[in-house]
Amino acid sequence: MKRVKVSNNVIRRLPRYLRKLDELTEAGVSRISSGELGRQLGLTPSQIRQDFSCFGEFGQQGYGYKVTALRAEIASILGMDRGYSAVLIGVGNLGQALLCNFSFKTWGFDLKAAFDIKPQLIGTDYEGVKIHDMATLPQYLSENKVDAAVLCVPKSHAVATTELLTSHGVNAIWNFTNVELTAPESSTIVENIHFSDSLLSLSYYISEDNDEKAARAARMNK
Amino acid sequence: MKRVKVSNNVIRRLPRYLRKLDELTEAGVSRISSGELGRQLGLTPSQIRQDFSCFGEFGQQGYGYKVTALRAEIASILGMDRGYSAVLIGVGNLGQALLCNFSFKTWGFDLKAAFDIKPQLIGTDYEGVKIHDMATLPQYLSENKVDAAVLCVPKSHAVATTELLTSHGVNAIWNFTNVELTAPESSTIVENIHFSDSLLSLSYYISEDNDEKAARAARMNK
Repeated sequence: MKRVKVSNNVIRRLPRYLRKLDELTEAGVSRISSGELGRQLGLTPSQIRQDFSCFGEFGQQGYGYKVTALRAEIASILGMDRGYSAVLIGVGNLGQALLCNFSFKTWGFDLKAAFDIKPQLIGTDYEGVKIHDMATLPQYLSENKVDAAVLCVPKSHAVATTELLTSHGVNAIWNFTNVELTAPESSTIVENIHFSDSLLSLSYYISEDNDEKAARAARMNK
Repeated sequence: MKRVKVSNNVIRRLPRYLRKLDELTEAGVSRISSGELGRQLGLTPSQIRQDFSCFGEFGQQGYGYKVTALRAEIASILGMDRGYSAVLIGVGNLGQALLCNFSFKTWGFDLKAAFDIKPQLIGTDYEGVKIHDMATLPQYLSENKVDAAVLCVPKSHAVATTELLTSHGVNAIWNFTNVELTAPESSTIVENIHFSDSLLSLSYYISEDNDEKAARAARMNK
């Protein structure tokens, strides 16, 4: 596939399209227009057509999109069919929640191993993923190709663990530590789940909503 | 404070500024220029000045920003000083991870109670937050003002729980269920943590990087 440089905003919308298409498939919908897809996602039809046009032509004018074909195309664009491998570092509460509840396989990743320092965890397994001694990570990485690391270690270990991973050839990190792991110019690919950023955005929108309601009430009382 | 309509992209950057300013405070930095702040965040100085100008004037030309004052302003804009209350619904692995590891208080939220259906959880507490019987949620909401709910229930219960919450006056949801909870036109404020969207973005960037490397290698071999 020919790849063109696509804006981050488009890339961020692709997983949403994928989720929606999965929902439609489950509901037995086999074909959908850009108008209806837009309505369900809160986007304009032209926005949707423009997003998809970045990657080639999927739909047919006046005919709509075939749900399974479009789903397969987006999955392929996202690299879900490339068989990436991953390891998880730090099996605390959050690491355990990911191991037990998050289906890496569904999203194209083979989670091969997890690592922790706690003796009582080492050698056990969660949903078929074995927990290894953190001390054996360098050796593991030298013997196994690992495309991405899921980083769930405490804040204080985040940067050192990242350096260990990148120095052993891991070039992509799914970061749950709430620490900015690398300098902006770094070549390591970091995707952050910043819980606090998300909660603060919620806080902002609640505040905005409250202020609007208060302003409306003040106008009514004038 | 006078509130102007601010773009989502700016709002999304505010928590990042806040984290960076906390980091600077910890490192003993009391003043920073927009140039240096930009360098550390991978943004241009003019981008930063433009973001802050949405909310008024913080800096002084040629003098930079006072870290603690700017931090306080951004915290206030985000509503961190408004004392919002929250409840958490669904104390599975992820709910437990949030209760044990995530400091709601740090980000301005008072997490007052959690709810679950499992008898062995009800009546216990995690880090001082008591787990109540899910059946008592409607009564709790009628007796207590709750600004936001943290939704960690299984997918299959996501929409019904949302309806229960909104019908009892909860207008904001921090959504961990990976389900689109409301129609686009709904007045409920929903902030999503979509783990899979984030992982798929990582997958995209790994794929892009691999393709670029392959293309470079192909050119070298010509």
